[in-house]
Amino acid sequence: MENFNFYSPTYFAFGKDRENEAGSLVKRFGGSKVLIHYGGGSVVRSGLLDRVKASLDKEGIPYVLLGGVKPNPRSGLVYEGIDLCKKETVDFVLAVGGGSTIDSSKAIAAGTVYDGDFWDFYMGKRIDEALPVGTILTIAAAGSEGSPDSVITKEEGMFKRGASGDAIRPKFSILNPALTQTIPAYQTAAGITDIMAHLHERYFTNSKDVEVTDRLIEGLLLTMIHEAPRVIANPNNYEARANIMWAGMMAHNNSCGVGRSQDWNSHAIEHELSALYDCAHGAGLAVTMPAVFKYVYKHDVMRFAKLAVRVWGCQMDFDNPEATALQGIACLENFLRSIGMPLNFDELGAKEEDIPKLVDVLCYGNGRTGSISGFVTLDIEDCTKIYKMMV
Amino acid sequence: MENFNFYSPTYFAFGKDRENEAGSLVKRFGGSKVLIHYGGGSVVRSGLLDRVKASLDKEGIPYVLLGGVKPNPRSGLVYEGIDLCKKETVDFVLAVGGGSTIDSSKAIAAGTVYDGDFWDFYMGKRIDEALPVGTILTIAAAGSEGSPDSVITKEEGMFKRGASGDAIRPKFSILNPALTQTIPAYQTAAGITDIMAHLHERYFTNSKDVEVTDRLIEGLLLTMIHEAPRVIANPNNYEARANIMWAGMMAHNNSCGVGRSQDWNSHAIEHELSALYDCAHGAGLAVTMPAVFKYVYKHDVMRFAKLAVRVWGCQMDFDNPEATALQGIACLENFLRSIGMPLNFDELGAKEEDIPKLVDVLCYGNGRTGSISGFVTLDIEDCTKIYKMMV
Repeated sequence: MENFNFYSPTYFAFGKDRENEAGSLVKRFGGSKVLIHYGGGSVVRSGLLDRVKASLDKEGIPYVLLGGVKPNPRSGLVYEGIDLCKKETVDFVLAVGGGSTIDSSKAIAAGTVYDGDFWDFYMGKRIDEALPVGTILTIAAAGSEGSPDSVITKEEGMFKRGASGDAIRPKFSILNPALTQTIPAYQTAAGITDIMAHLHERYFTNSKDVEVTDRLIEGLLLTMIHEAPRVIANPNNYEARANIMWAGMMAHNNSCGVGRSQDWNSHAIEHELSALYDCAHGAGLAVTMPAVFKYVYKHDVMRFAKLAVRVWGCQMDFDNPEATALQGIACLENFLRSIGMPLNFDELGAKEEDIPKLVDVLCYGNGRTGSISGFVTLDIEDCTKIYKMMV
Repeated sequence: MENFNFYSPTYFAFGKDRENEAGSLVKRFGGSKVLIHYGGGSVVRSGLLDRVKASLDKEGIPYVLLGGVKPNPRSGLVYEGIDLCKKETVDFVLAVGGGSTIDSSKAIAAGTVYDGDFWDFYMGKRIDEALPVGTILTIAAAGSEGSPDSVITKEEGMFKRGASGDAIRPKFSILNPALTQTIPAYQTAAGITDIMAHLHERYFTNSKDVEVTDRLIEGLLLTMIHEAPRVIANPNNYEARANIMWAGMMAHNNSCGVGRSQDWNSHAIEHELSALYDCAHGAGLAVTMPAVFKYVYKHDVMRFAKLAVRVWGCQMDFDNPEATALQGIACLENFLRSIGMPLNFDELGAKEEDIPKLVDVLCYGNGRTGSISGFVTLDIEDCTKIYKMMV
């Protein structure tokens, strides 16, 4: 196991009706004027926004509103949010929505107290200071409610890039599984896929002797495999939603990823897809992951076989571990198919002729010099082959 | 799943040589004068205390020393520590040792800023305020490095009781697995047993639909079963020590125990044993757990069978789930025996004739009115039978 730091100071308020505590939590964590940041109409239509406003009113905390966050959140709205926070002397950003809204809120929180262009953080500068952020999560997926990360897409060039720093870890996150019950099946499945991707990205490691985090990751994957069909069959299954929601947080606050190298190549390869086609990130990952895994599994057959046996319940083929490894990947594909996810370019809306453009941005964007690194280092030729496997 | 709050803001610095960061971490978390609290001679002999002092010196942070913490830490030393902190205007308590030292440090930290008798907290008053506490852990066992809990024994009457509050959660905890390599085999095994007990106490629940935390607990138990024989065979196995150390923290910071009722009857029943006989807490739990489980398993046969199948690898007996449940408990006993733990009163140094005294303090001490509650409510007759099963 490698040396590591682990720091997850977010206060989680989990369960039914907890959004009504938003006001008291903002107060507890020092907010006196709030930006409520949210996405589309569902937060309004469902009455959630009104409940949050009422909760702030009850504590006498004034607020300003900024809606309009889109999936794969854009830099344009971040600039707008920063201007608004400065003008209104906001001192707390409250995200009401999913990963996109939370990531946009984190960017606004960091940008408001920064003299330069907030995009600097997404070009590699660490975020050391930000307004405090709180979240009310409405979809289990990104894990941004418990992470120090944010991903934003810059409109000019459609660059999708991430930033990080403990300063943007939410002070509190309210997780009410009931709020996720109205999410359409496709989005629910995309969220499930994203959570499972976060677990796979941590599982595929070159670190040795990491049994404790292996077992935690496997446990969370087993949970997803158990709960996903239940929630797809019945979107109102609160209990299944609850198990998925806590698994989603645990999958990404890094408690199961410490002390080990991680992969993240599937995410890198996917980010170019959702940047170019504006597809759901989870859907893109469903297309990406099996291709990446089939391309790299020979790098550590036994690790893939372990996942197949422990998580997918495959019988170990002791004469031919490669067969077990491949069987595990096939199980993942079947599972993703069963919850309604796309598995190829066509189903995703991606185009084969864009591959040269995709690999160019992937391997040379964001300061990269011709390859991406993770479980296996992949150069432009590898990435081209992987994209072609998805066609 | 039940509504819950989860808050684990401790900063964990994990790995080799991390104790040399003690000074900078004390500074980061606001300490300007430190009480270094520790136990016996091993912290001195190993040179650890000198390294910690040097680290504080380097940051120009003055300190006072208080050694002498014993296993099952006593109230007498806590009073001494409180007096010392007040006299020396200490503003940070640094525990260098195991669970006993950390628990004693937490008691001192709470007592120093409290006008009344610190024992009030151990009679049920919540700890809302305390000096900040940091820890340098030297044994994987109690999980106190990541918990809001402290257990102290009052000399008058030998009452062993717990207190709790977010204010005594460590601000930082340094976990260097190498520091645990010198621990004798018996203490190592007792620590392993304590960790496994923390997991069992959370596993046995009456809450329904808690797959995510079930799976996390199972994953941590599987880790312990894999790593314990390795570390017993070779005390210098850093990697096994590392996996156990992180599992010990995760087992008790409650990330795997949220949203579910928990048991804690084995702990309550054991506390009377270590209070009366001053035995190692983990050793007492090795004697206690199998007896309790055999007494209560019929309350939820399927839960015991699930643990047997998923954790101990038993084959499910679909015609007779009770047989599987009992087989799992037998596996636990065999495992505890294999790592050198006692399994009965004799081996522990406990006496059958003390049972009336044990059950009386157990069922009527600490404000209890004739029973203890958890997975199953156990009255004085039940507890008598359980203690007799250990003879």
